[in-house]
Amino acid sequence: MNDITIIGTGSMARSIAVRALAGGRSVQLLAHDDKGKADKLAAELSGADKTSTGRISTGIVGDGITGAIVIGAVPFDAAKMLVTEHRGALGGKVYVDITNPVDASTFEGLAVPHDTSAAEELQKTTDARVVKAFNTTFAGPLVQGEVAGQPLDVLIAGDDDEAVRAVADLVRAGGLTPIVVGPLRRARQLEQAGFLHMLLQANEGLPEFQWDTALRIVRAE
Amino acid sequence: MNDITIIGTGSMARSIAVRALAGGRSVQLLAHDDKGKADKLAAELSGADKTSTGRISTGIVGDGITGAIVIGAVPFDAAKMLVTEHRGALGGKVYVDITNPVDASTFEGLAVPHDTSAAEELQKTTDARVVKAFNTTFAGPLVQGEVAGQPLDVLIAGDDDEAVRAVADLVRAGGLTPIVVGPLRRARQLEQAGFLHMLLQANEGLPEFQWDTALRIVRAE
Repeated sequence: MNDITIIGTGSMARSIAVRALAGGRSVQLLAHDDKGKADKLAAELSGADKTSTGRISTGIVGDGITGAIVIGAVPFDAAKMLVTEHRGALGGKVYVDITNPVDASTFEGLAVPHDTSAAEELQKTTDARVVKAFNTTFAGPLVQGEVAGQPLDVLIAGDDDEAVRAVADLVRAGGLTPIVVGPLRRARQLEQAGFLHMLLQANEGLPEFQWDTALRIVRAE
Repeated sequence: MNDITIIGTGSMARSIAVRALAGGRSVQLLAHDDKGKADKLAAELSGADKTSTGRISTGIVGDGITGAIVIGAVPFDAAKMLVTEHRGALGGKVYVDITNPVDASTFEGLAVPHDTSAAEELQKTTDARVVKAFNTTFAGPLVQGEVAGQPLDVLIAGDDDEAVRAVADLVRAGGLTPIVVGPLRRARQLEQAGFLHMLLQANEGLPEFQWDTALRIVRAE
């Protein structure tokens, strides 16, 4: 039994695994179809922190999901297929949706209708309790856990209090600051904010923003 | 001739006036219909910083607009009437839209359609060059210029480069950090982000957020 199952082997999968391991959690890494990719990432994560050895297991999608919290570190379209095809295996789990469903044809808006969100669309097709999180944080800062000495904020939305609390605990254990913004439909605002944060990166007008910034709600001291 | 004309005498009018005066700008304060309110605010602002005396003039809407930049520190519905009724007087000016057009009946979303924004709606009815700014900053932090020692970010969107630059210069002069996010249609994302920031205030789950936080894009050092 692992605490966390991460599906995907890309930069977001890696960075969330780093935070989970930093928080003392055990992690199951599931590659889409090539277990070698998960093994490679696991070796890298163990290499960086030998204490992690034994707390990482690997597999491919379709293997038994051992985590109580499942993080779909894949794009929205892949996440839709994932929660549909593995409906049974995800039943009763907490499923964390990290996606920003940007319309890739225009990069002008989101590819979900305005009266819903990626997270809500996933919830329609799964019995897992969907929680939105990590969609406003970039992979590089997540690995570090901070930007400019400030721990990252992780904005969280969900309808199930227990599921939201479990994700907030994971975030806090990893040295980050959970901010619970409200019910799952607040993902509509989180996805717009995540999209805005993405739009600011590596563009002509803001050459200093290189996917290394943090969207934060700074509180008074 | 003033640098800035601020329409309204509420907390946002006051806080933007404080920043403009801190930046050495002169300010025309226009009350909606009661010049006494503008005079009162002007006296207060001069009292706080005697060097401001002589750099504040007052009047009511309908008086000649002396500022090159006009800031509508009023709710969206009032702003719509304003730019429509004073179309001639605003011609050629830079008009700053600070509104968050929250649907007040539900507080669940924005009262503008999803494929537009308050700023774009105002642009349709005015010859002024509309710039979105100050919709993600609250009045209290603006008066201070910072939260937790961090200067506020002011996210700016607009289609006219010269107008955007003029607003960015005003923001910078006032000790804040301008971040130009793109064309005016980016106001769609800014208004969702502003709405999200508002939703986090004074709610049951986040008692420590009391309209005193700052939405920031923290950059790497």
